[in-house]
Amino acid sequence: MAEEKDKDIVLLSHGDGGLLTHQLLQDFFLRYFKNDLLDSLTDAAVFSSEPGRMAISTDAFVVDPVFFPGGDIGKLAVCGTINDLAVSGAQPLYLTASFVIEEGFPFADLEKIIASMANTCRVAGVQIIAGDTKVVGRGQADKVYITTTGVGYLLPGANLGYQRLEPGDKVLVNGCLGNHGLAILLQREALGLDSQIISDCAPLSIMTTEILKRFKGIKLMRDLTRGGLATNAKEIAMSSGVDFWLDEAALPVEDSVKGITELLGLDPLYLANEGKFLIVVAAEEAGELLRYLREDWSAEYACQIGDIQAGKGNVYLRTALGGARQLNMMAGAPLPRIC
Amino acid sequence: MAEEKDKDIVLLSHGDGGLLTHQLLQDFFLRYFKNDLLDSLTDAAVFSSEPGRMAISTDAFVVDPVFFPGGDIGKLAVCGTINDLAVSGAQPLYLTASFVIEEGFPFADLEKIIASMANTCRVAGVQIIAGDTKVVGRGQADKVYITTTGVGYLLPGANLGYQRLEPGDKVLVNGCLGNHGLAILLQREALGLDSQIISDCAPLSIMTTEILKRFKGIKLMRDLTRGGLATNAKEIAMSSGVDFWLDEAALPVEDSVKGITELLGLDPLYLANEGKFLIVVAAEEAGELLRYLREDWSAEYACQIGDIQAGKGNVYLRTALGGARQLNMMAGAPLPRIC
Repeated sequence: MAEEKDKDIVLLSHGDGGLLTHQLLQDFFLRYFKNDLLDSLTDAAVFSSEPGRMAISTDAFVVDPVFFPGGDIGKLAVCGTINDLAVSGAQPLYLTASFVIEEGFPFADLEKIIASMANTCRVAGVQIIAGDTKVVGRGQADKVYITTTGVGYLLPGANLGYQRLEPGDKVLVNGCLGNHGLAILLQREALGLDSQIISDCAPLSIMTTEILKRFKGIKLMRDLTRGGLATNAKEIAMSSGVDFWLDEAALPVEDSVKGITELLGLDPLYLANEGKFLIVVAAEEAGELLRYLREDWSAEYACQIGDIQAGKGNVYLRTALGGARQLNMMAGAPLPRIC
Repeated sequence: MAEEKDKDIVLLSHGDGGLLTHQLLQDFFLRYFKNDLLDSLTDAAVFSSEPGRMAISTDAFVVDPVFFPGGDIGKLAVCGTINDLAVSGAQPLYLTASFVIEEGFPFADLEKIIASMANTCRVAGVQIIAGDTKVVGRGQADKVYITTTGVGYLLPGANLGYQRLEPGDKVLVNGCLGNHGLAILLQREALGLDSQIISDCAPLSIMTTEILKRFKGIKLMRDLTRGGLATNAKEIAMSSGVDFWLDEAALPVEDSVKGITELLGLDPLYLANEGKFLIVVAAEEAGELLRYLREDWSAEYACQIGDIQAGKGNVYLRTALGGARQLNMMAGAPLPRIC
């Protein structure tokens, strides 16, 4: 029966650059990622470049578990890099994907992940044009890790930068916070909570491209991944030298997320999101941007969550009781392998 | 003493996107990779693009051990991606680097690796402009894995492609074969052989850029990594539909490599190289190219190793005894984690 089993799993020899590597490419990667640039299978993929400003971003994805409510490591690896480009004001065009696979990983799972990546690429209008696969021994990785790198052109009208933030600007988010981090945690820890928290994992680039074309007052965007809203706001505040004032009562969090995080002693402001981003926009465009997000993009929980004030790079939370507490970067007990 | 120890190793919280991640970036990556594009630390790095044809390549590096004679995983990760671009006829400009680090990896080793990457980039004239770091638990990776992605422009004069190969073309390599694979194997397996086999790990892009400017008859180049000369020649033969005829007596292999591979029953033609590439060139330029490699680039073991004949995508080795045997892709017993 060993033979039977071997044909269903990834073996070390699938990573040696020989015959089995070739078959793996043909049977899985080329089948799902099919496009002219990838199909040439040369050492590097070649595409036509135009004059402009090009953005590039890379991320390693090591999420545990690899399948979770609302997504999987493949969808996450595509969304994560697309979203980094998107919030930088770029329109993502091409991705590369490199895989580190643990020996014994089932082909059936690999295929699901690859199909999910191909599907997410299709939705976002990007292509995977180059890749690599390595196989490591049992206990030298945990199932599969994926690194994606993306390139795209900055949208000509986009003018984003820390230095543009000024007192009076408004801070918006496109929906509820904390879902991805909590979904992963619950899936992993088997806490026995009968919840249906779904990760918000989604590509943002089509939305960001449209809003940047329409709203010239957008000054900065940031996807709220590792470290959540609080850590990311603090990083922006430190880089721009202004203060963020966020209204606790305005922060959109699903009731189920609120309930479970309270139970577990977690703060949704520090939980990772994979389809949520923060926008700093000139006050005069904030209302119309919010309406546009809610109505044209069905982002019904999009909210204005605070504003920018002169300051020294701090983030303050106006509490429901009228006080204010300072938010700092996440430190201490980490939630590892969340993305 | 636990406290003492903790400050010397990478912890899970260095990967959580919070305060310690920030410190890791500042203390290591930004310190060594310092450049204007990286320093902005935004979600994506932005560079000016020009009209032309751009090449992109990605590779994951999982080599075991991370330090070996002639290099380390950092040098290898930079050279590997630079060389993929180089043999595609591109001049590498920018790299991204993403790290998956096992909890407990010593900072001292991480620093050596990062310094080595920075040094190799300097030699090759490329910059690392974006990156990412994830930390996974003990037993979920083996020390550190690095994925690099590189971009560069195709050299305007370069015209490389499988379809250009024709009977009569000559096949060259730039030096001795098998060193990298054997160096890794000996370092890892502790076979008790008192050898000094040094990996050939080196960036090739400055050399390839120069030869492509000078020799218009160059039709194809390929770095001879995983699978070695034999597997790579077979892949090219299959893609181009011609046959390779290689002369066993002409293949450059160091005496020490020859001796040890014979002892171990290994074939240097299937061992990985990390600074060697194959060139297919029009017959009339072969002699001058060989002279140029040997004299101007001190590639004293550069050789003409065979030629191209009409055929069906096969690779033949003319043996010293006058016979011929067919070489196929590597299959069977793999040498895992060689790069």
